[in-house]
Amino acid sequence: MNEVEIDRVADPTLDEPVLVEGLPGVGHVGKLTAEHLLDELDGELARRIHSVHLPPQVGIDDDSVASLAGIEFHAVRADDVDLLVLTGDHQAGDNRGHYRLTEGVLDVAEQFDVSQVFALGGVPTGELIEEYDVLGAVNDPDLRSPLEDAGVVFRGGEPAGGIVGISGLLLGLSTRRDLPATCLMGETSGYLVDPKSAQAVLEVLEAVVGFEVDFGTLEERADEMEEVVGKIRELEGGMEVPDEDLRYIG
Amino acid sequence: MNEVEIDRVADPTLDEPVLVEGLPGVGHVGKLTAEHLLDELDGELARRIHSVHLPPQVGIDDDSVASLAGIEFHAVRADDVDLLVLTGDHQAGDNRGHYRLTEGVLDVAEQFDVSQVFALGGVPTGELIEEYDVLGAVNDPDLRSPLEDAGVVFRGGEPAGGIVGISGLLLGLSTRRDLPATCLMGETSGYLVDPKSAQAVLEVLEAVVGFEVDFGTLEERADEMEEVVGKIRELEGGMEVPDEDLRYIG
Amino acid sequence: MNEVEIDRVADPTLDEPVLVEGLPGVGHVGKLTAEHLLDELDGELARRIHSVHLPPQVGIDDDSVASLAGIEFHAVRADDVDLLVLTGDHQAGDNRGHYRLTEGVLDVAEQFDVSQVFALGGVPTGELIEEYDVLGAVNDPDLRSPLEDAGVVFRGGEPAGGIVGISGLLLGLSTRRDLPATCLMGETSGYLVDPKSAQAVLEVLEAVVGFEVDFGTLEERADEMEEVVGKIRELEGGMEVPDEDLRYIG
Amino acid sequence: MNEVEIDRVADPTLDEPVLVEGLPGVGHVGKLTAEHLLDELDGELARRIHSVHLPPQVGIDDDSVASLAGIEFHAVRADDVDLLVLTGDHQAGDNRGHYRLTEGVLDVAEQFDVSQVFALGGVPTGELIEEYDVLGAVNDPDLRSPLEDAGVVFRGGEPAGGIVGISGLLLGLSTRRDLPATCLMGETSGYLVDPKSAQAVLEVLEAVVGFEVDFGTLEERADEMEEVVGKIRELEGGMEVPDEDLRYIG
Repeated sequence: MNEVEIDRVADPTLDEPVLVEGLPGVGHVGKLTAEHLLDELDGELARRIHSVHLPPQVGIDDDSVASLAGIEFHAVRADDVDLLVLTGDHQAGDNRGHYRLTEGVLDVAEQFDVSQVFALGGVPTGELIEEYDVLGAVNDPDLRSPLEDAGVVFRGGEPAGGIVGISGLLLGLSTRRDLPATCLMGETSGYLVDPKSAQAVLEVLEAVVGFEVDFGTLEERADEMEEVVGKIRELEGGMEVPDEDLRYIG
Repeated sequence: MNEVEIDRVADPTLDEPVLVEGLPGVGHVGKLTAEHLLDELDGELARRIHSVHLPPQVGIDDDSVASLAGIEFHAVRADDVDLLVLTGDHQAGDNRGHYRLTEGVLDVAEQFDVSQVFALGGVPTGELIEEYDVLGAVNDPDLRSPLEDAGVVFRGGEPAGGIVGISGLLLGLSTRRDLPATCLMGETSGYLVDPKSAQAVLEVLEAVVGFEVDFGTLEERADEMEEVVGKIRELEGGMEVPDEDLRYIG
Repeated sequence: MNEVEIDRVADPTLDEPVLVEGLPGVGHVGKLTAEHLLDELDGELARRIHSVHLPPQVGIDDDSVASLAGIEFHAVRADDVDLLVLTGDHQAGDNRGHYRLTEGVLDVAEQFDVSQVFALGGVPTGELIEEYDVLGAVNDPDLRSPLEDAGVVFRGGEPAGGIVGISGLLLGLSTRRDLPATCLMGETSGYLVDPKSAQAVLEVLEAVVGFEVDFGTLEERADEMEEVVGKIRELEGGMEVPDEDLRYIG
Repeated sequence: MNEVEIDRVADPTLDEPVLVEGLPGVGHVGKLTAEHLLDELDGELARRIHSVHLPPQVGIDDDSVASLAGIEFHAVRADDVDLLVLTGDHQAGDNRGHYRLTEGVLDVAEQFDVSQVFALGGVPTGELIEEYDVLGAVNDPDLRSPLEDAGVVFRGGEPAGGIVGISGLLLGLSTRRDLPATCLMGETSGYLVDPKSAQAVLEVLEAVVGFEVDFGTLEERADEMEEVVGKIRELEGGMEVPDEDLRYIG
């Protein structure tokens, strides 16, 4: 097995697809968004990446069949546009692994002639959110204008700590391949899985890329989480305490 | 020394042997099982693997002679079937090491034309066990039927966290070599070395592979551990408190 | 991407330049010094180094444009001497990375025919400083005399723990390329960003290399920090407690 | 720079020398012993090993001259035998590094046609020691007899946790090169630098290898440490409490 191994599962014909990355991270925003796309739209598994940099483990499915830890690319038709949706349960375990894995992702992107990259994630605010802004970062300033039209917020210098992991490296390493890349970060408290933040990110993606999906199941999950948040607020002695600091739950 | 070094110690003739892996892990179930096989049946050391991914240390034997940390393969004749039994005191120290070491194990398996792989281990329940179920996972759904006949329990999606380490990778990487692989996990509290769980796993292995060994010494060790558990229960103020949570002992 | 990747951004003509390294470290002394040089003198970005040993992240600039973590070399004309100023926000994440990154730095030094190396940093005293000595270490005893003339203090055997990270390796690995290298370490408490210590280091560098820069902005930053220190001292109940041990703030 | 770099400093002619390793470890027993040999006997620096697996740092000597972290081999004539004495301030930082560095050591051993290896160290007892036994381990049972004659104690299976680091690997990897290797471990509390334990080890080495050195300075250091230990015992309320458990000082 190579350091990064790309398994060719199927070779669907895609027309300059948009790569949408949603791996685990803050509030699981990116992962929820990408998985919702796969739930709502018919997709075909096209590539799988395995790597010595991923955890040494297998997942067990409903039939008790094991599958090696990896990240997957599904080809998805969304209205008139083709998407290549990247999902998985793991990120790499060390610096070198993050670089090598991201290069593997961009190798797959080249195999499918990807036209641009959207790395999805969450940005922690440390407080319960009322209005879910979506923060943007790009690897080319020309990308900003259509994103601003779709409501993406650009706050120069933010996030202050930069963007870490595969989402960050997708921006940094795409530049080296002349591939336009955008990171969409849904604001989220950072303490809870956040389907509402995922919905905000997905709405931006729809507007910018040009497709529509149903939000039903995502809204259901959001309602469930709202109940959890409501109970937390109640326990704290007041129903109407917006922007309450939740740091002690972390 | 290569990253993974396979030392050829002897070349016994084996007829499509079954690889049985029992390295250290939860409750030492896999290790106890594999070592009991070597105690009860005549075996011949066939291969040793050393690796820069194993701890930088030597073990000291009863004659004060040092031997480099490694994992060992013994060729064992069990009634009418040939076994290749993998034992050792260590697993790898990092992600890459787990992958590379497992590949080394499968290289040895190919040298002996291994027909299938059984990775043995324990699955922690967090409670004292009365009935020792053996949980199964496979890398091919066709493997399930004979295992179910032998009493193996398949609970889809379990263990929820997947299977980590060499046992997990043996399933994940065997698939890439078209080698059938099963993981047998004895339920165990997770807090104590558990010979009873090892016995449950071994009974399944006997039934599925088709051989018999004496359980005497394993039962003795089980009785010793039962005394320990009995004393723990007494200290807790009651002789008859089944399924008592032991988490605070961890 | 190679383990260490040197991007050629521009090829300014430099006459046996002096390499000045100022990466993050104790009191940010080296980084403050190097960045002050870039603030005060016109410079041109000449090289950028990226590496799998640097953190897997991008920084976000004022236009929300991402740039891959890296270290940068600016060509700077300082009066009659050419400088190659090395700055950045990160050091390597492990032993091997420090070595490989330092070798990359020295490869760039060779590309520009660098005549000597100054590694800048801070040395922690554990106490608030009144007089900012600059401690020196060299990779060739012949380098000491002009440094002593410029006020550099040499205390044999100090720092007792040696010099760690890129600054240390620049001395250690320059020797292997017959390149004279000096480490200038400004004394600093070790608890606070220390522009006064940076100024002391810069004054030595000016005297030894032969150039002058304005200290205005560095002095402003020093005054701001002095206020912070004054408040700390006040809180401790006395305005005039020199050499007070601050270890509990660390 | 290679992963492990062997610098040829001088090429003294040695007649099947004995390699004596004394790197930092428990009680600094090995390091004290090897350094005492270099203090008492004239030696010539023959080889230096640098490695990306050693800490990224330089040491600073009495003239403030930096030298890259490394391990050193001195050729020493001790009465009628030649020694190759290995000393240094560091061990490797990870598993792979320990293996690679030990292989480098054995490469140097081959360059000088080393006849046998003595790895020196301490073995912690957790108690203050009255009689300093020297525990032995070998990579060939034939080595035991002359060692037992010299008073080395062999306790089968001890140390129970094996021998870790370069000392351990020297035994494990020498076997692969058909080189006889012995580990001599002076008993020591494990809490203090222990010159008395070093003396016990050195006395064994003298007897087995066949040379004599003066113990004066080592005895002085031992007396100094005895005073420290005496004061600890006094503080504990009794002058005559042998084998007192010191575990709380650790």
